[in-house]
Amino acid sequence: MSALNVEKIREDFPQLKTTVNGRPLVYLDNAATTLKPKVVIDQMTKHLSQDVANVHRGIHTLSEMGTRQFEETRIAVQNFINAREVHEVIYTKGTTDAINLLANSFGERFLNAGDEILLSQMEHHSNIVPWQMIAEKKGAKVVVIPVNDKGDIVLEDYKKLLNPKVKMVSVVHTSNTLGTTNPVKEMIKLAHANGSKVAVDGAQSIAHQKIDVQDLDCDFLVFSAHKIYGPNGLGILYGKEELLNEMPPYQGGGAMISEVTFEKTTYNILPNKFEAGTPAIAEVIAFKAAIDYVQKLGMDNIYNYEHELLAYATSELKKIAGIRLIGESETKSGVLSFVLEGVHPHDLGTLLDKQGVAIRTGHHCTQPLMKRFGITACARASFTFYNTKADVDALIAAINKAKEFLL
Amino acid sequence: MSALNVEKIREDFPQLKTTVNGRPLVYLDNAATTLKPKVVIDQMTKHLSQDVANVHRGIHTLSEMGTRQFEETRIAVQNFINAREVHEVIYTKGTTDAINLLANSFGERFLNAGDEILLSQMEHHSNIVPWQMIAEKKGAKVVVIPVNDKGDIVLEDYKKLLNPKVKMVSVVHTSNTLGTTNPVKEMIKLAHANGSKVAVDGAQSIAHQKIDVQDLDCDFLVFSAHKIYGPNGLGILYGKEELLNEMPPYQGGGAMISEVTFEKTTYNILPNKFEAGTPAIAEVIAFKAAIDYVQKLGMDNIYNYEHELLAYATSELKKIAGIRLIGESETKSGVLSFVLEGVHPHDLGTLLDKQGVAIRTGHHCTQPLMKRFGITACARASFTFYNTKADVDALIAAINKAKEFLL
Repeated sequence: MSALNVEKIREDFPQLKTTVNGRPLVYLDNAATTLKPKVVIDQMTKHLSQDVANVHRGIHTLSEMGTRQFEETRIAVQNFINAREVHEVIYTKGTTDAINLLANSFGERFLNAGDEILLSQMEHHSNIVPWQMIAEKKGAKVVVIPVNDKGDIVLEDYKKLLNPKVKMVSVVHTSNTLGTTNPVKEMIKLAHANGSKVAVDGAQSIAHQKIDVQDLDCDFLVFSAHKIYGPNGLGILYGKEELLNEMPPYQGGGAMISEVTFEKTTYNILPNKFEAGTPAIAEVIAFKAAIDYVQKLGMDNIYNYEHELLAYATSELKKIAGIRLIGESETKSGVLSFVLEGVHPHDLGTLLDKQGVAIRTGHHCTQPLMKRFGITACARASFTFYNTKADVDALIAAINKAKEFLL
Repeated sequence: MSALNVEKIREDFPQLKTTVNGRPLVYLDNAATTLKPKVVIDQMTKHLSQDVANVHRGIHTLSEMGTRQFEETRIAVQNFINAREVHEVIYTKGTTDAINLLANSFGERFLNAGDEILLSQMEHHSNIVPWQMIAEKKGAKVVVIPVNDKGDIVLEDYKKLLNPKVKMVSVVHTSNTLGTTNPVKEMIKLAHANGSKVAVDGAQSIAHQKIDVQDLDCDFLVFSAHKIYGPNGLGILYGKEELLNEMPPYQGGGAMISEVTFEKTTYNILPNKFEAGTPAIAEVIAFKAAIDYVQKLGMDNIYNYEHELLAYATSELKKIAGIRLIGESETKSGVLSFVLEGVHPHDLGTLLDKQGVAIRTGHHCTQPLMKRFGITACARASFTFYNTKADVDALIAAINKAKEFLL
């Protein structure tokens, strides 16, 4: 089917061998979090068993080794997203933390009363609420880029919203609900011509396609480690050096300072300025194993395989009477959201779970988008490279069985 | 020596069997981070291998199980610190994140121009800088509680600083540099009589003595999991319900909302209001194993054993000519900081490391305290229950050997 040997890949993920409710696990909740390959688990275990030490300020061997490994991950991330400078990579707690850091720090420096922040109608709550909070503080305004019936942003609509008051466009790369991959490169070009900065929420795209921040020319990119086969509690904020340098620190504490007195505190340079406190050391170090793993598979191979799989899943799902797809963009990636006529998504999810098929149901933290599509919830199956056509078949069979039971 | 079977306990910590520079590891950097017992490592490995799922919003079995375990840790923390309500326990990224949350959210609600925040001279930078940042925003003022030559806060000095303008007293329970355990219960009583709230930085005390937030009557308590044998990337903010309810959210995103529209977003109740985004799920779940572990040993047993060990270490260290102790409080716990006449702490640390003895050197993120004691750096050995008199003897021997080499 592709350049990936998926049967061999599946051997790398121990959780794929488990059962749920007595049935082999069919894990189709990858947009919520991804399973972990053995190389990541082993690195976590090794660190916690042999290498524990705090980083940065220690001079003993363990601390120095920890610091070196901690910084090696930063270089791996830099290379993975093709950042110009390694200190443009900031460790955060996750995507949400990264957006809060960004909204606060960018907002404090660059937002004034009357300014506008453009967000699309398909944003995750984590890319809405932080901007609402800083907008309220600064007297700025959140303006919505609409989404059409297919689940696309229409560039003409977007262009009309660009005006000199727009200081920031924060937009999701791939929607966690619709699956739509937005034309961010084009959007960034238009924003820059307008004098606006652009933040890209890469939480749902980072694991599924090659992202080159220099090619995109985005000003900021955020994503989470746990959605690209890495540990929990870790996210990345990429930002252009010249912007990050102008922005004030978000949190205060150890490592982010240059000198502290009770009279006056001065701040450290990048990346430390934005990394107060003891970081998620084991998690950062293990994240390198995840990046190395996907790079070895090849992001283009992953992209191609997953797109073939999604096409198959879409065509199979459409055969079921009463299915309405939520999101029918031609640029979809990884995510298949739907409602089944006459069935509450929650009930459907519960019956699928009984058959070992793990999907997600609810508003997927995109309530404005639910409203846009006239629903309050939907079911979502989300795929990645360890999923197979057999998983899709299991999903379809489980939906048909649930239908028999419920209707 | 005590109720603890330390030789047996040491078997629980795999890292204690490792070598550094060809010598058995003597780990005396416990104030920076603690090693992990097998039960914590095993729980992390189990979760990452079999139980991966996102929490909160899933209905499939793995997600429901993850959510249940995630909340079981919250109950364990509640019981461990004797909080009245389970939703008074908020998960953060660490102590630093918890203090930033607190300073921002408490500050936004309760601080006005001219108000005062009392901090002691022995605070870690993480309990200074966040307060400086919010003070600057609000036009409030940070006022310093002095520390005497022995390393104690003199209650008479503290009393003089309490006045109606003081809205917050934020004080370290046990100093990471001096080892002083402050009389926080008495300080809280005095603050409350003055109408001030009190936050206790328990980062260095939580692993070493029983803390009962209802008995202390503190308004807030913060600490990190990684300093009490738990995973990285996780901290706790305890706060009294009535205060947390009045405080605005700190970060925006998923889970912390009740309803999101672009016009108006409403917030969730405690604890979710303060927990935006996907949390450190594996870490939270594994943290319960750490709490269970220390509770099984018994916090009083731990306290007694460590205090005996510290007394032995102190008396042995004092025998070395040229040693000056930094911090000679009668209420010391776990930490032994010192300078050796004529030797830079950094050089001493390096030579100790060559002998397998891991200590920390530097300003320990307490620059104002360094200034108070007329130094820029010191060496610090920090102990916990898996350390032994043999570890102390190794430290002393290594210092003597370094002395021969350097002087």
